[in-house]
Amino acid sequence: MATEPERRPELKDLEALLRSSEERPLADFLEEVHPADLAEWMEELDEAEALRVLGALHGENRTELLSFADDSVRESLLPHLSAKELTNIVEGMPADEVVDLLALTDEETTNQVLRKVDFERAAGLRELASYNADTAGGLMTSEYVAVGEEAHVSDAIKEIKSEEGPAGEEEVGVFVIDPAGLPVGYVSDRELLTTPIHTPIRDIMETDLISVPANADQEDVAHLFRKYSLAALPVLDPEGVLIGVISSEDIHDVLEDEAEEDILRIVGTSPREQTKLPVLVRVRHRLPLQALTVVGGLVTAYLLGRAFPDGGDTTDILRYLPIIIGLAGNVGIQSSTVLVRAYATGELSAERENSVLASEILVGCLIGLVCGTATFLVASYMEGSGSAPNYPFGFAIGGAIAVSVSWAALLGCLVPFTCERIGIDPAVVAGPFLITLSDISGAAIFVFVATSLGLSG
Amino acid sequence: MATEPERRPELKDLEALLRSSEERPLADFLEEVHPADLAEWMEELDEAEALRVLGALHGENRTELLSFADDSVRESLLPHLSAKELTNIVEGMPADEVVDLLALTDEETTNQVLRKVDFERAAGLRELASYNADTAGGLMTSEYVAVGEEAHVSDAIKEIKSEEGPAGEEEVGVFVIDPAGLPVGYVSDRELLTTPIHTPIRDIMETDLISVPANADQEDVAHLFRKYSLAALPVLDPEGVLIGVISSEDIHDVLEDEAEEDILRIVGTSPREQTKLPVLVRVRHRLPLQALTVVGGLVTAYLLGRAFPDGGDTTDILRYLPIIIGLAGNVGIQSSTVLVRAYATGELSAERENSVLASEILVGCLIGLVCGTATFLVASYMEGSGSAPNYPFGFAIGGAIAVSVSWAALLGCLVPFTCERIGIDPAVVAGPFLITLSDISGAAIFVFVATSLGLSG
Repeated sequence: MATEPERRPELKDLEALLRSSEERPLADFLEEVHPADLAEWMEELDEAEALRVLGALHGENRTELLSFADDSVRESLLPHLSAKELTNIVEGMPADEVVDLLALTDEETTNQVLRKVDFERAAGLRELASYNADTAGGLMTSEYVAVGEEAHVSDAIKEIKSEEGPAGEEEVGVFVIDPAGLPVGYVSDRELLTTPIHTPIRDIMETDLISVPANADQEDVAHLFRKYSLAALPVLDPEGVLIGVISSEDIHDVLEDEAEEDILRIVGTSPREQTKLPVLVRVRHRLPLQALTVVGGLVTAYLLGRAFPDGGDTTDILRYLPIIIGLAGNVGIQSSTVLVRAYATGELSAERENSVLASEILVGCLIGLVCGTATFLVASYMEGSGSAPNYPFGFAIGGAIAVSVSWAALLGCLVPFTCERIGIDPAVVAGPFLITLSDISGAAIFVFVATSLGLSG
Repeated sequence: MATEPERRPELKDLEALLRSSEERPLADFLEEVHPADLAEWMEELDEAEALRVLGALHGENRTELLSFADDSVRESLLPHLSAKELTNIVEGMPADEVVDLLALTDEETTNQVLRKVDFERAAGLRELASYNADTAGGLMTSEYVAVGEEAHVSDAIKEIKSEEGPAGEEEVGVFVIDPAGLPVGYVSDRELLTTPIHTPIRDIMETDLISVPANADQEDVAHLFRKYSLAALPVLDPEGVLIGVISSEDIHDVLEDEAEEDILRIVGTSPREQTKLPVLVRVRHRLPLQALTVVGGLVTAYLLGRAFPDGGDTTDILRYLPIIIGLAGNVGIQSSTVLVRAYATGELSAERENSVLASEILVGCLIGLVCGTATFLVASYMEGSGSAPNYPFGFAIGGAIAVSVSWAALLGCLVPFTCERIGIDPAVVAGPFLITLSDISGAAIFVFVATSLGLSG
């Protein structure tokens, strides 16, 4: 993807260097690596390796690494940084990033760092930290350039130069504010570059401003950026005073995260990068939907039992069919959606493919085991006569569910994986095709296993 | 959401003005409206009204309206614009927008317009039009500022001023290219503003450039923007020569559209703004998944009939249960997903809520009718003896399916709608809760209707 793909350093180059004990080549190598790549690679390193990388980085490079790093990498590195080192790191970081970073440290470290940074900046950071991360206040930076209505282009440029500290505020043009602090106009950097410097700012400023209150939901903020094709969005306090600015780049993550959240919630799992979580956590995230399906299916089986009291063995098996149809569909769509999205967002890199596939299949089988056991227990009692549970029947139904759910999970993982391999967009096939395939084969396996396990039709 | 929400003009103000016949107040009113708002309102106007609005707009305002308008609005307006008017409109439009707009006109009009615009620009536009819309080439603009390696800051600024035509290229800084046209560096507008003008450009340019080939998929382009927090991305031809630039704002739509596509495909419907399509088109988009489910369910029913040949009436009804469990889940999740996403992306505005709700319910009922009829026909023959179809049985099963699918569609629409009304995020409830609810109630209704229609258990 890069200009000269063959020259760009890769994770395996770093791993090779980490196996040697020399520090010099490591530091030289890291100079050549884009901090965004390094931040991604850090997720694959163990703690000792990650600390060696951190030790080989200095100044701006540390700041950039921590700016690009995910929370998981930040959390593993932060305990190893002194308050002084952390102060140096945040010095060169945009204010909104600093707030996100300090939110991961303990209160004492945060206070130590805030005491060391410039007084005015510390006040701004404390203010920023008070906003909910999912709101406009949580996205904005308080470090931007604003000038009064009487300013000329030259004043705006002077103001930019004076504000340009090591931190570097967002590069989002200049806002024009009235004496009360209300935004009345906006001028882009490009406009400043192309206008004679003695021009009054009010002659060139754009006055039809779109803005948001600080408590606006980040999803609404993203809509405004899309709808109005904004480069920057001013954030206001309840009096309408300008208190921060959100940039277009800040919105990329919001758009992706919000869509991701909706997708994963629709298929009944937690809105987090699933493939990076431990297997048991994934099982826990997805069990509520399956539990609901099992309960629903058991209620259906019970009601059908009341409707057809003298149905015989065949009817008894078929009454439990809704459980497996529901479960097979859910388990399959959860696994396939998690994989489809992991491919789509780039969460799933080639080197992780096999281990992610194996772990997803394991997640599905564990869910099958839990649901099968639960059904075994309930069905044994439900189909028992009086106080004597019918264990053979329960075991046949529970075992059949465990087997066919595992099968559905296997399908749900292998279908998108195979599609990706042979070059078909997995999203197209994973939905409809998969649901139907797992419905039919799940039902067939269920009936086959249930009858083999002791209930002949 | 705006600075002074009570003052911002609304659609109903426009509609009131359109009811009067005076032109003057309409033109004055439109001066106050943001073109992005106007573009959205145009979707709600009939053709005569839309043309009156277009007639009241001139110059830059027409260009902006067409820049912000959706394809549906563009398609309705374009036939009413002469090649000359269209030429004036595209004059002030970024090149990537022009290409998208001209793609909607017939070839003759396109050629007329291209003959009227500046020769160099026409060549660039023809080149841009040759790229697939879903690739880096389809997203980029060919109008950006580039300077040689020997340039100074003053040269870069001079170049920006000279390029700044009425069209206004993307405001994405300046790229530095070597004599062969390969990009070697990048300088932001902010950097140019804050650096003394006699500084050599190579002293301040960023050299660690990320770039893409023109045929890169737009999804991969969006990943690069997110991963590297880019403000602009250079696009290269196969020789590595810089041929275009993609800006951060271009990516918002890509991120949203790609996620949307995946979501809607996962639930088995077409990746388009569903709530804005006619009812029958929506039915057509969703039927393939339902047809697959019906076929799968009928196969299951057939196999179960072979496994349990002497089951009697009860077994015969229960063998068809998988169809309704599958259909009820699919129909419910399609409608709820369409509504959840329409709320989330702002596609569903308050004034459209009731009509969208009614049309979605209608879509579900029509799908129920089609699936019920199909099942009626197939089941009649499948359960008939010899050549005599069993119509009463088929009717009972088909009717039960039509009723319970309609019920599931009703649930799938009302649950997210009610959540939105009472302030719960519909995405949380719409998935798991809905699937289970429609499974159980769908199965219950199916059995009840099937038995009432002539098959007692």
